[in-house]
Amino acid sequence: MSFVDIMVFQTKVLGTKEENLNQMAEKMEKADLSSVDLVTFPEMFCCPYETESFPLYAEAEGEMSWQWFAALAKKHNVYLSAGTIPERGEDGRIYNTAYVFDRQGRQIAKHRKVHLFDIDVKNGQYFKESDTLSPGNEVTVFETEFGKVGLCICYDFRFPELAWQMVHRGAEIFIVPAAFNMTTGPAHWELLHRARAVDNQVFVIGTALARDMAAAYHSWGHSVAVNPWGEVIRMLDEGEGNFRCTLDLEQVHAIREQLPLLKSGRGF
Amino acid sequence: MSFVDIMVFQTKVLGTKEENLNQMAEKMEKADLSSVDLVTFPEMFCCPYETESFPLYAEAEGEMSWQWFAALAKKHNVYLSAGTIPERGEDGRIYNTAYVFDRQGRQIAKHRKVHLFDIDVKNGQYFKESDTLSPGNEVTVFETEFGKVGLCICYDFRFPELAWQMVHRGAEIFIVPAAFNMTTGPAHWELLHRARAVDNQVFVIGTALARDMAAAYHSWGHSVAVNPWGEVIRMLDEGEGNFRCTLDLEQVHAIREQLPLLKSGRGF
Repeated sequence: MSFVDIMVFQTKVLGTKEENLNQMAEKMEKADLSSVDLVTFPEMFCCPYETESFPLYAEAEGEMSWQWFAALAKKHNVYLSAGTIPERGEDGRIYNTAYVFDRQGRQIAKHRKVHLFDIDVKNGQYFKESDTLSPGNEVTVFETEFGKVGLCICYDFRFPELAWQMVHRGAEIFIVPAAFNMTTGPAHWELLHRARAVDNQVFVIGTALARDMAAAYHSWGHSVAVNPWGEVIRMLDEGEGNFRCTLDLEQVHAIREQLPLLKSGRGF
Repeated sequence: MSFVDIMVFQTKVLGTKEENLNQMAEKMEKADLSSVDLVTFPEMFCCPYETESFPLYAEAEGEMSWQWFAALAKKHNVYLSAGTIPERGEDGRIYNTAYVFDRQGRQIAKHRKVHLFDIDVKNGQYFKESDTLSPGNEVTVFETEFGKVGLCICYDFRFPELAWQMVHRGAEIFIVPAAFNMTTGPAHWELLHRARAVDNQVFVIGTALARDMAAAYHSWGHSVAVNPWGEVIRMLDEGEGNFRCTLDLEQVHAIREQLPLLKSGRGF
């Protein structure tokens, strides 16, 4: 099929895991998800975005949050990119992990953030995910009834070579659960989404945490959908919200035909 | 040295090669080049931007235009990125070639456009450089007294993997002689310069042909300088013009220290 309907939820993190899972269910219930194909949530949307909280909120694959996500995907008959949550790996390490479920609630993808966000900007942001998290090592592209979708998490999206890997494995849509901050957000959020869309000739969906000035981490928000010509289709502001938009994958094919970037690389 | 003074010339193509070379000399003479370190000109600034003209205007390395460039670099005591000209290779093939000279007029770099511009946009641009040109195969980074500079030509700049190669060979500045058109220019020119600057944490200087609606090819113009945080420092409009700007390479080092993208790639 050529048309894909997407619903993007930009949410704030509440206090407990249960409150956040309930919020997710309520928001999906309230929104009109009829004929929606894919629902997305932001990075760490069930857990305060603080390194010391990640181990406290971490769960193994298949535990409570995972089951909740699977049930919601099935209930609403949608593909669900359930943002990310801290995952306790089988090795005891903590990962920043994105799960994706199909319309039957089956897990069809799992991405562990590959590039941890360690930043120290002069007069700006200090944040070291690696204080408590370990990095994944895999490129993530999954099959759906509407074609292949690549997924990476926030800081992963800084690295064009990861995008290259996703698109050369067949992705026509990139999903990016994220939470840029008040330093990098205004400078680079929209720019990176537009540039990755243009370079890779894909649709890009960036799903951000809503801003909460009472939280320790202040997210830039501005969840965004960009088409493969680099045009912003929809963008939220910093507050809680959601949007629905339709992607016409025929645009991907047309642009790749007219400007054959993906075939013209010289193998550097 | 930390500060580099750049002078960018956005020129129109005149009828004959000699007229264009004279124009170049006059513009350099009129501009105040005292304390300028590096002068840049656009892609194919001495030759109509038409595939059938490339073989007619082509010269081997060391011939008239080359000598002219070398003499101007020496006369003005500047590094000179002499845009690009059609080069007749030792193999008889024609290349889209950028020469760079040092303050003594010695050639220090030569880049043959690696990615030829073959485009066919529906209701937009049709242009096939490969009708008369052959592609180069090399990544180009050269040494100067102010550090390493990467150079690629127009469509080359579409490919993040070439930028990756330049920056990982030490480039702190990218020079891009170019001539985006009226389809891709408004959509992507500024975006790509800003995104490459951010991803590679370099200064980017895009030097474009001025627009000439009487010419067969209509250039977007908008020569631009971008800093490593992705901010546009200077940008021209579509007409003939030039600008001077100062790059502080300390910015490159500071940003790479604060947001260590180049060290954080995972080898994909």
